[in-house]
Amino acid sequence: MYPDKFNDVIQNFSKLSGVGEKSAERMAFDLMDWNQWELDDFAKSLQALKDLHECSVCGNLTDQEVCEICSNDKRDQNKICVVEDSKTLYVIENLNAYNGLYHVLGGLINPRKGVMPDSLSITQLEDRLKTGQEEVILALDPTIEGETTSMYLEELLKDKATVTRLAYGIPVGGKVNYADERTLIKALEGRK
Amino acid sequence: MYPDKFNDVIQNFSKLSGVGEKSAERMAFDLMDWNQWELDDFAKSLQALKDLHECSVCGNLTDQEVCEICSNDKRDQNKICVVEDSKTLYVIENLNAYNGLYHVLGGLINPRKGVMPDSLSITQLEDRLKTGQEEVILALDPTIEGETTSMYLEELLKDKATVTRLAYGIPVGGKVNYADERTLIKALEGRK
Repeated sequence: MYPDKFNDVIQNFSKLSGVGEKSAERMAFDLMDWNQWELDDFAKSLQALKDLHECSVCGNLTDQEVCEICSNDKRDQNKICVVEDSKTLYVIENLNAYNGLYHVLGGLINPRKGVMPDSLSITQLEDRLKTGQEEVILALDPTIEGETTSMYLEELLKDKATVTRLAYGIPVGGKVNYADERTLIKALEGRK
Repeated sequence: MYPDKFNDVIQNFSKLSGVGEKSAERMAFDLMDWNQWELDDFAKSLQALKDLHECSVCGNLTDQEVCEICSNDKRDQNKICVVEDSKTLYVIENLNAYNGLYHVLGGLINPRKGVMPDSLSITQLEDRLKTGQEEVILALDPTIEGETTSMYLEELLKDKATVTRLAYGIPVGGKVNYADERTLIKALEGRK
């Protein structure tokens, strides 16, 4: 019913996860109030995404050969925090609480979906440890896939570095009696 | 913290109403999984929006001089449904229940915001009635601004056409005792 050119925009927005037909329509109508240069800028920013690729060292998003984090020699070169994806990397990075390096696995081991260790960037992680990093911090989800991957990496890397994991426990501000059973058990085990 | 090119996309998405920083980030990460041609297609669809403008007759969105609805002679030329904006036009159009023409006002009279009758496409509506339309259906919001605009148009056009309004009442599937007072009064007044 909409003009074709309007429909094209709606269809593109609705390809994004979490954006339904109604939201896509709203966004398209919103854009009708944008200036021509704003639309051009948005369009160019989308096309520029193809310049982004994985950092050749850690796998993080970058438009250079080696990402800004890896090439920053003020960061603690002795720590590597292992994350599932770039998104998680930035969640941690935005805390401003960690000053080491990262390694992006590109997924979690999941045999049912055919994700085996060799589909992840685990060899690259091993190779990095040869240059002498002391600590590998596993920051993977406390799910079956995350646990499997963490255990695999612990076993694989134990002779090459100190392997640690994020602490599990009651979320800050949370209530002990609202915590689920498994979290509570982890919190008890991790007491200090 | 993100690479600049990634940030640009996030900033553009967060300019859309109803899209917060977090959602914009999610959308940008989503796009990283798109093919190059998909990104190009999205970019081109945004740039093509500037070809859309208001139909010279009714004010609806179109990429032609006169929109498809106005130029479709199978539609009932004797009815004009007056709406606030193109979005409302398409909501009605998508019902497949109305086969007349439309007129997009481009807003509602709102003296506090400086929107007076001459900022809306009211003269254009009057001009259209000279060609002999019989009925003007006001489909404006039941708000103060919508009521003001409807009353203004009723007075202005009463000698030129039959002016009708959408019926107010209990929404289909709604409960009488859940309806607010003003809706209930309108429903009582409009009983038949």
